[in-house]
Amino acid sequence: MKIGILGTGMVGETLGTKFVQLGYQVKMGSRTANNESAAKWVKAAGANASQGTFADAATFGEAVFVCLKGAVFLEVAKTLSPGALAGKVLIDVSNPLEFSNGTMSLSLCNTNSLGEEVQKALPSAKVVKTLNTVNCGVMVDPAKGGNPTIFLCGNDPDAKKKVTDLLKSMGWRDIIDLGDISKARGTEVLMHIWMNLYGLFGNPHFGFKVVRGT
Amino acid sequence: MKIGILGTGMVGETLGTKFVQLGYQVKMGSRTANNESAAKWVKAAGANASQGTFADAATFGEAVFVCLKGAVFLEVAKTLSPGALAGKVLIDVSNPLEFSNGTMSLSLCNTNSLGEEVQKALPSAKVVKTLNTVNCGVMVDPAKGGNPTIFLCGNDPDAKKKVTDLLKSMGWRDIIDLGDISKARGTEVLMHIWMNLYGLFGNPHFGFKVVRGT
Repeated sequence: MKIGILGTGMVGETLGTKFVQLGYQVKMGSRTANNESAAKWVKAAGANASQGTFADAATFGEAVFVCLKGAVFLEVAKTLSPGALAGKVLIDVSNPLEFSNGTMSLSLCNTNSLGEEVQKALPSAKVVKTLNTVNCGVMVDPAKGGNPTIFLCGNDPDAKKKVTDLLKSMGWRDIIDLGDISKARGTEVLMHIWMNLYGLFGNPHFGFKVVRGT
Repeated sequence: MKIGILGTGMVGETLGTKFVQLGYQVKMGSRTANNESAAKWVKAAGANASQGTFADAATFGEAVFVCLKGAVFLEVAKTLSPGALAGKVLIDVSNPLEFSNGTMSLSLCNTNSLGEEVQKALPSAKVVKTLNTVNCGVMVDPAKGGNPTIFLCGNDPDAKKKVTDLLKSMGWRDIIDLGDISKARGTEVLMHIWMNLYGLFGNPHFGFKVVRGT
């Protein structure tokens, strides 16, 4: 499978490297075709790694990962041609984080979510929200976070099936499909308690496991 | 220990019954001293159970539980004499839930929380937020929810110590102190994903366990 990664930050790099290791072909996209961070990553990641513009990575991937800050991606989405992501699985792993005076809040919350806004911005893409409740080190190695539950949601069942298979190939076992893309509201707000626990623990190697009684 | 319960609904009844079973003296408070639901509960719960007004229950309890809807309690708080809860441990187990066209939202969210508003409304009380992330059946029997993590937060360390001991007497083992009362933002928002999972599972016997890797 060919995978596009939009963004050259730590999340994009970590996911890109994992997918190359799993044998997928990966193109990392950024504002410019010759981005330095992407070039460094391509060199390190090997033959199945390549780079290009956001549009190049979007066109390349059968599944495309949003690894940009929420607000940034909504701007980038406007610059893509309407057909660039039509019918494709677009996997949003980001959160609408804002920081002011050291306090975190969400720019979309409670009655809306970034997942929903991404789907609205690209109505012909099949948006699936997932992996946004764990740090990127845990995204690619669930045991590193104590094997938590991973959630996904989206409007297209086939897209969710493909993402579930991809998650399984990454080592995820406890996967819950929450429903349509509006369910992103419930996973994005977990950032509030996630940031709190990150501060308490001093490391990001944790997650939330849904446990059930009898 | 003497415990006051504000509210005669399912949460108040369930907690009150558990505390009587644990050997505590419990007074259930409502708008009127002779509330029918409270009278029925007193009759069923036995000698250590009694009833009265909200003010009676507040005066009676060394620890007082808020088992009312968030908005209702903030109104009730205005009717209590300023000294009624001064210095007392006030345990807020409620959430600022609102429902419109079958969709849940929170009346306080993201940059505020019900826990913080309760503390503001009663500045001389020692507010501790806890138990608001599970159904009342799980509150009094953690195994029924798969032994999840229970969170607490509040500004007063001694009050949190007392509540921790109370939680332990109720069977809780995995207890995390999140910090000051503003951390209620992180636990109240869990209602979004809680309601989602409740719909998927068809029962409220679950919870969230914080798991950690290496």
